[in-house]
Amino acid sequence: MANAGYVVTDMSDTLQALAEVLEQRKGADPEGSYVAGLYAQGLDGILKKVGEEAAEVIIAGKGDDDAAVVRETADLWFHTMVLLAARNQKVADVIAELERRFGVSGLQEKQQRSTGEGA
Amino acid sequence: MANAGYVVTDMSDTLQALAEVLEQRKGADPEGSYVAGLYAQGLDGILKKVGEEAAEVIIAGKGDDDAAVVRETADLWFHTMVLLAARNQKVADVIAELERRFGVSGLQEKQQRSTGEGA
Amino acid sequence: MANAGYVVTDMSDTLQALAEVLEQRKGADPEGSYVAGLYAQGLDGILKKVGEEAAEVIIAGKGDDDAAVVRETADLWFHTMVLLAARNQKVADVIAELERRFGVSGLQEKQQRSTGEGA
Amino acid sequence: MANAGYVVTDMSDTLQALAEVLEQRKGADPEGSYVAGLYAQGLDGILKKVGEEAAEVIIAGKGDDDAAVVRETADLWFHTMVLLAARNQKVADVIAELERRFGVSGLQEKQQRSTGEGA
Repeated sequence: MANAGYVVTDMSDTLQALAEVLEQRKGADPEGSYVAGLYAQGLDGILKKVGEEAAEVIIAGKGDDDAAVVRETADLWFHTMVLLAARNQKVADVIAELERRFGVSGLQEKQQRSTGEGA
Repeated sequence: MANAGYVVTDMSDTLQALAEVLEQRKGADPEGSYVAGLYAQGLDGILKKVGEEAAEVIIAGKGDDDAAVVRETADLWFHTMVLLAARNQKVADVIAELERRFGVSGLQEKQQRSTGEGA
Repeated sequence: MANAGYVVTDMSDTLQALAEVLEQRKGADPEGSYVAGLYAQGLDGILKKVGEEAAEVIIAGKGDDDAAVVRETADLWFHTMVLLAARNQKVADVIAELERRFGVSGLQEKQQRSTGEGA
Repeated sequence: MANAGYVVTDMSDTLQALAEVLEQRKGADPEGSYVAGLYAQGLDGILKKVGEEAAEVIIAGKGDDDAAVVRETADLWFHTMVLLAARNQKVADVIAELERRFGVSGLQEKQQRSTGEGA
């Protein structure tokens, strides 16, 4: 995959940029920003949205539309990132937990290709 | 944040590496691999796990343990990545959808800092 | 519980009456009836509501407000009854499944009180 | 429906009987009773099961098997009844909330048939 480096950089920039935008929106007007409106609903409102979006992932997962699976997964990730922000947690720590739990990182993954171990 | 660049690179490597491991596990023995065991349960089994993990995010979101919020979010993201793999969809497309939907990318995010527009 | 008979009759009347109202609403104007509006959204819309209400039960279950637990459970049951109606299934069959699965009925329950067996 | 009275009585007996069995199981050995095992997991364990069962209702709702819709709805109702018991709430109050919210009762429902009003 010749352009893996490009894609990889793009993914990380996006998650980090989104986390920063979510942090900035804590001071925004709930009337003028969807995210500020979510914060204004409080934790229960955000968690309700997480539940809704998870239901939509399941519904899309049972359907035939591949793009819907991608779209609903993005919505679910987005709303969990709002939750992380509301709880003052970092998306980087979620990624670190994925590494820790499932034994993957840039370095480890190459080792896994050699040894066949992993998740 | 002096080491933001390092963290960012690490995040992207992890998601890409995890996606590749999930792809590799399609050929693994369900007895010896958790992920292969999930694939063997079929789409309904994977979607049930997505629902379970979403419930655990909500439960953690209502609790006092910040680390549990991070941990359960990681579990939820992991199982949605298994769903993406099972449906032959790419995590990079989820990230691209987040960019498209919420107007953030490495470049755009810098513009947003100047103009105050965004999600 | 001196008035158990009254309460019990009330419960059954309500579920049966609600099921009949849900059936009647299949022909109603989506603009003038909440239930007809749900039917008009199709199965995915109804299932999304089931997911939302389940999230609200979990959120209430983690909270301190007992009345909210009752209220959100009622909402969840209601929307599953809309699903049953949309799929042309009977609430009486759900009750029969509960009997079959968990070994309770008016008669069996009295036997369980004597023998101590059950769910 | 000539035997509607019988079915209706059966429904009510079942929910009331099940609620009583769930109450009795609070003192049972978690090793020997599924319900006592759920109580032993605490509120989070019960709520996690509610989330799982809701996911299974959604999955069944998207599928072709009508019996699965009934079966998974029964499972979801059952686990919400365990939640009610764990929170010391009454299923009769859920039914009363359905009456209050959606304007149905044995008496009101007959009135609705005449007037065309309702949920």
